[in-house]
Amino acid sequence: MDSRRVESFSDGVFAVAITLLIFSLLPIGRGALSYGSLAHAWPQYAAYVVSFLTIGIMWMNHHVLFGHVRLVDRPLMVLNLLLLMGVVAIPFPTALVAEHLTGPNASGGRPAAVVYGLVMVVISLFYNAIWVHLIGHASALGARFTKQQLMASMPRVGVSRLRIPRWSIGLIGYLAGVVVALAGSAAGALAIYGLLAIFYMFNQLPAPLSYESQPEQASPAP
Amino acid sequence: MDSRRVESFSDGVFAVAITLLIFSLLPIGRGALSYGSLAHAWPQYAAYVVSFLTIGIMWMNHHVLFGHVRLVDRPLMVLNLLLLMGVVAIPFPTALVAEHLTGPNASGGRPAAVVYGLVMVVISLFYNAIWVHLIGHASALGARFTKQQLMASMPRVGVSRLRIPRWSIGLIGYLAGVVVALAGSAAGALAIYGLLAIFYMFNQLPAPLSYESQPEQASPAP
Amino acid sequence: MDSRRVESFSDGVFAVAITLLIFSLLPIGRGALSYGSLAHAWPQYAAYVVSFLTIGIMWMNHHVLFGHVRLVDRPLMVLNLLLLMGVVAIPFPTALVAEHLTGPNASGGRPAAVVYGLVMVVISLFYNAIWVHLIGHASALGARFTKQQLMASMPRVGVSRLRIPRWSIGLIGYLAGVVVALAGSAAGALAIYGLLAIFYMFNQLPAPLSYESQPEQASPAP
Amino acid sequence: MDSRRVESFSDGVFAVAITLLIFSLLPIGRGALSYGSLAHAWPQYAAYVVSFLTIGIMWMNHHVLFGHVRLVDRPLMVLNLLLLMGVVAIPFPTALVAEHLTGPNASGGRPAAVVYGLVMVVISLFYNAIWVHLIGHASALGARFTKQQLMASMPRVGVSRLRIPRWSIGLIGYLAGVVVALAGSAAGALAIYGLLAIFYMFNQLPAPLSYESQPEQASPAP
Repeated sequence: MDSRRVESFSDGVFAVAITLLIFSLLPIGRGALSYGSLAHAWPQYAAYVVSFLTIGIMWMNHHVLFGHVRLVDRPLMVLNLLLLMGVVAIPFPTALVAEHLTGPNASGGRPAAVVYGLVMVVISLFYNAIWVHLIGHASALGARFTKQQLMASMPRVGVSRLRIPRWSIGLIGYLAGVVVALAGSAAGALAIYGLLAIFYMFNQLPAPLSYESQPEQASPAP
Repeated sequence: MDSRRVESFSDGVFAVAITLLIFSLLPIGRGALSYGSLAHAWPQYAAYVVSFLTIGIMWMNHHVLFGHVRLVDRPLMVLNLLLLMGVVAIPFPTALVAEHLTGPNASGGRPAAVVYGLVMVVISLFYNAIWVHLIGHASALGARFTKQQLMASMPRVGVSRLRIPRWSIGLIGYLAGVVVALAGSAAGALAIYGLLAIFYMFNQLPAPLSYESQPEQASPAP
Repeated sequence: MDSRRVESFSDGVFAVAITLLIFSLLPIGRGALSYGSLAHAWPQYAAYVVSFLTIGIMWMNHHVLFGHVRLVDRPLMVLNLLLLMGVVAIPFPTALVAEHLTGPNASGGRPAAVVYGLVMVVISLFYNAIWVHLIGHASALGARFTKQQLMASMPRVGVSRLRIPRWSIGLIGYLAGVVVALAGSAAGALAIYGLLAIFYMFNQLPAPLSYESQPEQASPAP
Repeated sequence: MDSRRVESFSDGVFAVAITLLIFSLLPIGRGALSYGSLAHAWPQYAAYVVSFLTIGIMWMNHHVLFGHVRLVDRPLMVLNLLLLMGVVAIPFPTALVAEHLTGPNASGGRPAAVVYGLVMVVISLFYNAIWVHLIGHASALGARFTKQQLMASMPRVGVSRLRIPRWSIGLIGYLAGVVVALAGSAAGALAIYGLLAIFYMFNQLPAPLSYESQPEQASPAP
């Protein structure tokens, strides 16, 4: 199947999922409303902003990922469907965190932050799986670059020659957030999730077009 | 009307319907939240996953189906609208199963699983109806293959020469699920629905492009 | 602005609006669930089906309407926005009818059916307004047919030479539904709305491409 | 990244956000329904209409804005994401105003109208930021006009030579609405927001194509 058709459907799912985050804000207006009640709802705003930026960045990365290939095979479609299943679920942990970080239900803040992090971990795993599948079937999927070029575009682990998919960084970050939440600080975990979104916003994935110069840059290194 | 326009609208409907499945998860966070309450919500997660995969596979098959033709006539548009009416309804039985499989409302689990299966049966019937209409009007709809080629692409019933639309298999599977639910096991029915989704995920519909070699494969059989 | 861009945005709005009709069904599963409670929810199913078919047909007619022109001017964009404002509102009267046609809130059935009909009347008025604007600015909007050809495509009032926009028929039908609801029969009004949807499903709007032969057909009449 | 891909995703977000405004109307039908209760719900209808027109006009202006360029760089994507974060939030203050303008919760009307105005102020700021970024990177983004032509398309402040981005007018209008709400009149603020929507509906942004003649029109002025 043409990769653009899958991208177009995925775009629609991303667009709806990001818009449904509004359901984290809607409960604020129930009952009495005052400047005080609006101010006390800060976890709702924080959860909305963090999840909105996160889904937005995931959308950008999704495009970079599928911009590498012209065709999509069945395993890639199934992996993409599983990835979207994670993305669509984001409004659920967002609402959990929004409602349980403070207030009468605050004892639920930690499990809420754990669920939030775990959903992100699952999504990161599927991004990595899609990337590994893309590299392994680069020519069959009509990729613009060779398997070697794609592998050379991955970041190195420290000074070693080992290269890991870029999503592994997010994976480690979200696991750290889960640990912080389990250790007792739901707000600390949410702060980590927010910092990860801001980090990804400025540390963009290299676009497919910019790879052409990368193999040269990488060649003197080993 | 150009078939791509109908596909594009249908894509939008599929994308929104699959995203609205989140409404099966959102009620989990109401009231107190703990690791225990999160674990007890497993029917919600199961219903979300099964329905997500099911709608995702229906979207893939929808594309294969409409990929056969270049034009869409009025009966096909009406049949497609009725099919979408079934797809959009899926979040409803999903929420029914999610809320009534366990807990205080568990007596509703069986009717919920029956409704779930019946919605799928209706959708399967419309897939079959669209397929029959496509075959009957192949040349008028600008199909890429002849009526004979399209018919030869259908699976055989056992060793007989009779060929049935591929969706008939799902139809029989969902009817079996309805019978299991009526017989008393809502969880058993949900397991059948999940297995059907996994079966379809790996037993893909042959894409229009792969038909060209099929008539040859089929010719030595009779 | 290119008419395809407006159509594409409108398609998205139609797709979301038609999918949000599911909110008429979701309340069914709250509380206890049994075969009896599922059967008693028939107004919900009826309202869902009638509104789904109605929005589906409106989407088809929207395409036929904008298929006449290549460009969209500012008044047309504003008229289209007002039309979409009516289409997006449809899930509201649908939910009103679904919840108030029977049961403890049945006294609200008549006002609900009146609101339903009035929303449809407003939408019909905007379809007529768009059609009148299209005819009046046919050449400026890059229409495929002349003003005379477009006017000749409209149905006649009885045997007179007067021609009215096709949407006037729906307008009269929906006004009749409002009168029936005011006179006391909410179910009767809903039946009229359903019959209108079925009528439109089979009495399609002539597609722009089929106009070319219409002026000839029309010429012997006067 | 190609600007059309960003526009297409933004279109999807706008389409879903505008459709979710229906959640301002849905609560009307809960409980008993009568002609009186429907009439008393006028703030809901007013909030729905004002927000619908506002999002619709924002969508039009978004297209004009991105119609200037062919490419989108990372800062522009982030600014666009922040803009969309504001647009998606609109159903929240809309629901606040709808529920708190009258009735038992009317004391919340003023904070609701303040939040409504502030969300609009934030959106206006991002529109201005995108415009400033577009002008500053016109050639790098493949703009159809030079930086000088784009600057000359901005309205003047009175008789001075100073030119300001067109969105500054809305910014000032929405700030005025916030002041009126703070001063005690929530309905007055909503009236201002409605007038701003109607003003923008008729005072359209000049489309990119109409710029070609603007430098000439502007040249005799100084």
